[in-house]
Amino acid sequence: MTIENTALLTDQYELTMVSAALRHPMAHRPCVFEVFARRLPDGRRYGVVAGTGRILDELSRFHFGEDELAVVSRFLDDETVAWLRDYRFSGDIDGYREGELYFPGSPILTVRASFAEGVLLETLVLSILNHDSAVASAAARMVSAAAGRPIIEMGSRRTHERAAVASARSAYIAGLAATSNLEAARTYGVPSAGTAAHAFTLGFSGPQGPYEKAAFAAQIEALGIGTTLLVDTYDISQGVRNAIEVAGPDLGGVRIDSGDLGVLARQVREQLDSLGARDTKIVVSGDLDEYAIASLRAEPVDTYGVGTSLVTGSGAPTAGMIYKLVEVDGLPVAKRSSHKESKGGAKTAARLARPSGTIVEEVLYRPTDGPPSANGFSLRPLQIPLIRDGDPVADLPTLADARDHLADALISLPWEGLGLSHGDPAVPTRYVLG
Amino acid sequence: MTIENTALLTDQYELTMVSAALRHPMAHRPCVFEVFARRLPDGRRYGVVAGTGRILDELSRFHFGEDELAVVSRFLDDETVAWLRDYRFSGDIDGYREGELYFPGSPILTVRASFAEGVLLETLVLSILNHDSAVASAAARMVSAAAGRPIIEMGSRRTHERAAVASARSAYIAGLAATSNLEAARTYGVPSAGTAAHAFTLGFSGPQGPYEKAAFAAQIEALGIGTTLLVDTYDISQGVRNAIEVAGPDLGGVRIDSGDLGVLARQVREQLDSLGARDTKIVVSGDLDEYAIASLRAEPVDTYGVGTSLVTGSGAPTAGMIYKLVEVDGLPVAKRSSHKESKGGAKTAARLARPSGTIVEEVLYRPTDGPPSANGFSLRPLQIPLIRDGDPVADLPTLADARDHLADALISLPWEGLGLSHGDPAVPTRYVLG
Repeated sequence: MTIENTALLTDQYELTMVSAALRHPMAHRPCVFEVFARRLPDGRRYGVVAGTGRILDELSRFHFGEDELAVVSRFLDDETVAWLRDYRFSGDIDGYREGELYFPGSPILTVRASFAEGVLLETLVLSILNHDSAVASAAARMVSAAAGRPIIEMGSRRTHERAAVASARSAYIAGLAATSNLEAARTYGVPSAGTAAHAFTLGFSGPQGPYEKAAFAAQIEALGIGTTLLVDTYDISQGVRNAIEVAGPDLGGVRIDSGDLGVLARQVREQLDSLGARDTKIVVSGDLDEYAIASLRAEPVDTYGVGTSLVTGSGAPTAGMIYKLVEVDGLPVAKRSSHKESKGGAKTAARLARPSGTIVEEVLYRPTDGPPSANGFSLRPLQIPLIRDGDPVADLPTLADARDHLADALISLPWEGLGLSHGDPAVPTRYVLG
Repeated sequence: MTIENTALLTDQYELTMVSAALRHPMAHRPCVFEVFARRLPDGRRYGVVAGTGRILDELSRFHFGEDELAVVSRFLDDETVAWLRDYRFSGDIDGYREGELYFPGSPILTVRASFAEGVLLETLVLSILNHDSAVASAAARMVSAAAGRPIIEMGSRRTHERAAVASARSAYIAGLAATSNLEAARTYGVPSAGTAAHAFTLGFSGPQGPYEKAAFAAQIEALGIGTTLLVDTYDISQGVRNAIEVAGPDLGGVRIDSGDLGVLARQVREQLDSLGARDTKIVVSGDLDEYAIASLRAEPVDTYGVGTSLVTGSGAPTAGMIYKLVEVDGLPVAKRSSHKESKGGAKTAARLARPSGTIVEEVLYRPTDGPPSANGFSLRPLQIPLIRDGDPVADLPTLADARDHLADALISLPWEGLGLSHGDPAVPTRYVLG
């Protein structure tokens, strides 16, 4: 639950641009800004949109009160300060829903507003989309690699304390089962999970040395027999023995957080089975990423815990999205300098699929033209209305909708698109821009 | 300015451990927890501590009100909920000051409290230190690479919107000159900067095409002749000509945001000089990291703008610090499982330096033993008191102190420690633990 003003989560130059624009009609000309990524992170086959819901929330708190005006009046003229005092975004926003796949060039968000109103949103919109989509994109690969086994997100300690909350949200969209983060449980209703760390077992040490069984007994006393006991503080075999001695064969689970997880999972499974604990689950954690998860597919692992790699986007901590002015007064505009050219003019997009549901390409077209011929493929427009006249539209997709949508979207990828190996985007982007 | 409760920025298992502990004397045994990094990011020579000041701030808002209790009572027993209602951290914390260098094993933070009180802080403390130190560590290398030229932090759009504020703070500790982020200016007093983006120039397009000069004139009208004009929206040479035509030779600066920055900087410098604008500065930006900054050292660049690489820790987005229980009731404890062994028992540290000031090693020792013999080297203890009986001590170092401290500390590194090439930590860590 967060009540803070968001207006200063903004680069200073957005405001100096407004100041310079306000002296001219240009400030009030109707403009179109577009968010897209020129490319996916190195070798990735698809990206996953996340953050749109948070944009709508933070936009509702994006206004300049007296505190904020005091800060910006240090470098802005009185006229601009007065304009900011009255500022409320009054434009329209369309975009890809959360949980939608995206590819290079996909118009993930389209903002229609006056220049001054639209330019102000750039920093906040990009911060949210770049962070949340980076996490969701990495997380979706982990979910694919886990092939149906649940993953718990436990990366809060490896990222900024508020980014952790957004990461848990993105991970949930991507299909992770639960998060360790309690603020994500409160704010977004993400299921939370967690039992104990090594410190708990160590805390039961005494002058006679370790006393692992006392720790296990205390945990079971508090959390019940269905809890998961962490068995690798001292010796894993002894830990498993202690766990079953204390809990009996109906123990919910054991967790292994270090060592060669594949080898250990097999040994622990055998040991649990031999002790009659055939239904006791094995949770593994410790520097897992999508590749490590995939490598454990043949091992008797029931649940994965992921941390660092998830909250840092597994090598791609930011999605590289940009916010570009593409149209002014109905006319396309575009930067022309070296190797950063982009295609001017408002665009929207549709995805073409075979009758089997497998997608074949992303087509970008002018909203004024309508979608191109589908040539026997099915065609699904990708942008939905998000904001009209400054207000969120009714019945926007929920977090659960986003999660369901992504699960379906991943099924629609060509099979090689779901692989972890490096390659080109799973489908090409085609521009039909007349 | 932030007023939010921080108690749920926490992993669920910290609370279930408290619940299980509270049924036993163990919950109230005096414990020592220690924050350290087993290693530096791959090839780095040193790390920079940042975030301590934010921990003190967020700890003051770490308490369980009715809203927070409602969330945790979903999975906790009544006794634990009652204990949390009264919870205020009442222990002691010592640690490395912000702006201090650290090396593998450095005891960056030492928390002395009962088990239950101390374990609760783990997630929040690690989130802050891992994020802020990752950014400061990368930023310090950029400052070294810039060799005295100012760097402006402009990475807000590439990271979570609140992580952006903390990143700007860390960057300031590391010696960057300013930030684009206005919330960092408000909350921490970091100097802010920023002028205009390509969208501003594009916004002055019309049916006759681009009108760059009108954009430049509008910016100068609003921000004065000392402003920095972005000259690479269309053609850079024409952009520079337009800039000086509109502003005259006293223009403050021009910014180049794309292309081969070294080549362009030389061309633009020559062109500016030939137009009589000998004092007009050149700002370069666009995917700069410490290596790109270093490669521009011989070029006529006046100021660097850095974004993505700074806020993502330039390849190391998290510092890898961990929070370990090292002592219970005065006795050392340590995990014993494979390749994650650590040295139990409370430790503190000092740094030894030659008479020239160059440091030679970091020595870790028992606080009860006092520092070891310095053998003719000077010896500086590294931990300072931060919290006593739950309250921050008086006269803690300010952000400006941290910045000054780091500037001095970097001078103390052996010369090879300041290089960008991969290698071992700049000085070894020696354990004198009796």
